[in-house]
Amino acid sequence: MHILLTNDDGIYAPGIASLASALAPVAEITVIAPDRERSATGHAITMHKPLRVDEVELAVEGGGIKGLAVNGTPSDCVKIAVKALLPQPPDLIISGINRGPNLGTDILYSGTVSAAIEGILFDIPSLAVSLASFNPCSFTTAAQVTRIIVEQIKDRTLPARTLLNINIPPLDFQELRGIRVTKLGFREYENIFEERLDPWGKVYYWMSGDVVDRDEDLEDFDTAAVRKGYVSVTPVHFDLTNYALLEEVKDWKLSLETNKGE
Amino acid sequence: MHILLTNDDGIYAPGIASLASALAPVAEITVIAPDRERSATGHAITMHKPLRVDEVELAVEGGGIKGLAVNGTPSDCVKIAVKALLPQPPDLIISGINRGPNLGTDILYSGTVSAAIEGILFDIPSLAVSLASFNPCSFTTAAQVTRIIVEQIKDRTLPARTLLNINIPPLDFQELRGIRVTKLGFREYENIFEERLDPWGKVYYWMSGDVVDRDEDLEDFDTAAVRKGYVSVTPVHFDLTNYALLEEVKDWKLSLETNKGE
Repeated sequence: MHILLTNDDGIYAPGIASLASALAPVAEITVIAPDRERSATGHAITMHKPLRVDEVELAVEGGGIKGLAVNGTPSDCVKIAVKALLPQPPDLIISGINRGPNLGTDILYSGTVSAAIEGILFDIPSLAVSLASFNPCSFTTAAQVTRIIVEQIKDRTLPARTLLNINIPPLDFQELRGIRVTKLGFREYENIFEERLDPWGKVYYWMSGDVVDRDEDLEDFDTAAVRKGYVSVTPVHFDLTNYALLEEVKDWKLSLETNKGE
Repeated sequence: MHILLTNDDGIYAPGIASLASALAPVAEITVIAPDRERSATGHAITMHKPLRVDEVELAVEGGGIKGLAVNGTPSDCVKIAVKALLPQPPDLIISGINRGPNLGTDILYSGTVSAAIEGILFDIPSLAVSLASFNPCSFTTAAQVTRIIVEQIKDRTLPARTLLNINIPPLDFQELRGIRVTKLGFREYENIFEERLDPWGKVYYWMSGDVVDRDEDLEDFDTAAVRKGYVSVTPVHFDLTNYALLEEVKDWKLSLETNKGE
């Protein structure tokens, strides 16, 4: 099995190094990732400047794992890997391990998840993997969990055009309560903007905020599952059509007529 | 009615100026948009540098329409507008008029659509509007169409958490064949990467490509509707959960057990 690894924390991040180390014994690994941190880039792609690719060595204990650093976004990395750099498409794409959760509505902003969406746009089975903590902590357990999941799904046909979005609580392996298959929760932020004055008296704003999860504490939402110590696995697709409303909007009978006579 | 306008081509772009001019007679308009072009930024947000806001004058014929320029992405603009700059949320958010189509799977990359998604995340009715041409052409017809649609929907309750993604063919008003309510098509790109050598013999890549629409020429896809001269209106939501596959993935009985004894 040939696995392409990418991420949005940059090719030198410890999360991708841990993942590469954990998977190297069971698969052929290629690492193609951004040359620096690209968090919160969403699904940005790079069309207005050229992309460059450089061979680098990953921050793996003991060394020895090489990768290709791209001066672009996570989505760029998957596109250029599949369409220009690799002789044939990989069997699986894994984006991660991200430092910090990618849960609920927040996946809209996630470079990690967007890279996996690129994978399924190319019909390549893809996973997005995140460690649900911003604190300095080990990726060892998260890498071990990812390997366990990869071994369980490798003989399955992943559903077409659907990725698995995996979030792992920041716990020791023995403390994990199990795996929950979940739907995406709704994350709201309070106090998003902090207004400050610069040394010259001019206003500027920092975006941050405190997260509030709208999940009624139900474990079938990813946000609640992770909070309660479960590994969350959500099937995610990319079709944003609201099919349930197609007929309703058709019934509005929108028309260009009203103004045609003017 | 108070309408917030934003875009991803930048506050000085002609598309937002045309829209502001067309809507000014029927609504109170506030323009809060990026200080420069931010195309293909997807749903990126700015968390690692501060945001600044400056009052500027739009590129409107005759002048007189002011706006606020933000050194961030389209999504940043909606967030900071709603949560920091406006005394109360607007009645409607319109993102556009974008120069170039936002159709099918391409909306994943769209700053224009992402700004409208921010709107519905805040439960504010939102539209994304795009003129389906990259050629220099007038936004007058697209602005007129947008106004007609706004007047038809202003007394309706837009469905919760759903935006309308509107694409307008680059035709004269009289040539438009009508409005179609559509689902998102699937856009593929061929020859995505062009490999070149720089003056020092080092490889670099341009991302571009030729679009191929997988829509079987059916007008219920947005891509085909616009190609055939219809204004396309697609209800778009933000929940990427693949509900149809939840039970199937649950049936896999993923588990952490295999490795627990190791």
